Parts: sequence; C-alpha cells; structure tokens
Amino acid sequence: MDKFMQAAIDEARLGRSQGGIPIGSVLVRAGKLVARGHNKRVQENSAIKHGEMDCLTNAGRQATYRDTVIYSTLMPCYMCAGTIVQFKIPKVVVGESRTFDGAREFMESHGVEVVDLDLQECVDMMNEFINAEPALWNEDIMEE
Amino acid sequence: MDKFMQAAIDEARLGRSQGGIPIGSVLVRAGKLVARGHNKRVQENSAIKHGEMDCLTNAGRQATYRDTVIYSTLMPCYMCAGTIVQFKIPKVVVGESRTFDGAREFMESHGVEVVDLDLQECVDMMNEFINAEPALWNEDIMEE
Repeated sequence: MDKFMQAAIDEARLGRSQGGIPIGSVLVRAGKLVARGHNKRVQENSAIKHGEMDCLTNAGRQATYRDTVIYSTLMPCYMCAGTIVQFKIPKVVVGESRTFDGAREFMESHGVEVVDLDLQECVDMMNEFINAEPALWNEDIMEE
Repeated sequence: MDKFMQAAIDEARLGRSQGGIPIGSVLVRAGKLVARGHNKRVQENSAIKHGEMDCLTNAGRQATYRDTVIYSTLMPCYMCAGTIVQFKIPKVVVGESRTFDGAREFMESHGVEVVDLDLQECVDMMNEFINAEPALWNEDIMEE
C-alpha cells in the first residue's frame, strides 16, 4: 500500500471511530507529508469540512500548491475539486470512485492529473458506512 | 441598497478592520438571513476560509440549500463556486466581478443563476485592499 494513501485511510478510520464520515486526506510535497485531515461534518457541525478541506485547513497558508499532491480515500466532490483547481494542486490520488463518482472530469478539464487506485479496502470502508448511516451520507453529498 | 448585500458589505468591512481580506457573504432563505461570514485567511490562518466558506461554516448543517440564495461582495472563485454547485444553491448575488472575474461560467453551466450587481462601492473596497496588500491578495487567489 502507498504510505500516503495508508495515512489517508488511517484518517478516515479515525473519523469513523469518532462517529463521523470515513473519508480521509493528506497533502504531500516532495515525498513528505505536509498535512492530514478527515471529514468533520459531525465532529465540527460543519458542512464544508470534507476530508480534503480539513486537510487543507490543517496545512495552513502555503505559498504555493503547485509542487504538492493531494490524496483522498474517495473521489473529490465539486467543492473539493473546485478547491483543487483554484489552489492549482496538479495531482490527486484517490482510493476509489465506485461509491461516489465525484468531479473527475471537471478536474481533468482544468489540467489536474487524477489517479484512481480503486482499492477494495476503501470501497468496503465506504459501503459499511453508507449502509449504516444512509441519511448522514446523503446529507454529506447533498442528495436530499 | 439590497439589505442582504449591505450585510455582506458590512461583513467585508469588519474583516478588513481585523487586518483581513474584505470579502463578505450571507446566506438567505425566504427573505431571512440564515448566516453571515467573511474571509478569515489572516484571522484563522486558513486558506479555505473565503467569505462564502465562512458563511457556510456559520450556517452549520442545513437539510437543504435548494431554497437559499448566497450573497457575496465578490464573484466566487472555483472553490466557492464548486461548493455552491455541490450544495445545490440555486442563486448567487455578487457585489462585483471587475476586480476578480471568478467562476461565473462554471456556475451557470451547472444551472446556478448568477446576478452581478456591479456595485462601485464593492469595486472601491477591493481596489483599496489590493493596492494596500497586493501579496496577500495574490495569495488568496493563488496567483503566486
């Protein structure tokens, strides 16, 4: 397993253990972890704290993101994809896109490289959550 | 002046008075203000706390946004526009887009109604800030 994706999965599992939504993310520069985070909709009562947004919050103010890679256990939604485009993060590595297909084409149309590892571990983690907490999941992706 | 845009401008001026970036936003439902916020990059050391994102943070967890309008003193960037699309906010009212043209076409391509009030007061507020703090402004829109 890629060690950065493992760190994102660890974040996702930490979030689930807190009663939250199991999606984790890490930001990497030059082979080193810059920041990590996980979805905190439940924990912080925040609609914008998807895993990627929490990770970028924890990264603070970076002078540039052009030399970074962001990892997420799940394909980014339009909020997180728009953030990646605006921040000029050139590459995204995702754990899977089977449970949520997100905004891959939008990112690619703006020149972002998207790598989908299609990991069964990430699919299983999301399916366990979606089956256990369908209302919470639909709230998170605004499928009301 | 539209009272909701006035509230967004008040938020922007509050942010500037704190040493921050003067962009404010409010969320409205059925003619009532749901939440308000302003850019907090400086105040919270956060790259994701644009005015719209702070307003949506302050709104907490809403069951739906389909019956809301978001106001911003400035045309939303891709992060905020992606959030508006993901959250299914149907209408955005902006103070101006002359100092930053943002992601209007992206929002419109996803069915969001965008109303640009083109207010000289908002243009003047941004120009004063951009001239006083060009490095901070370029950091906020990732024009490094």
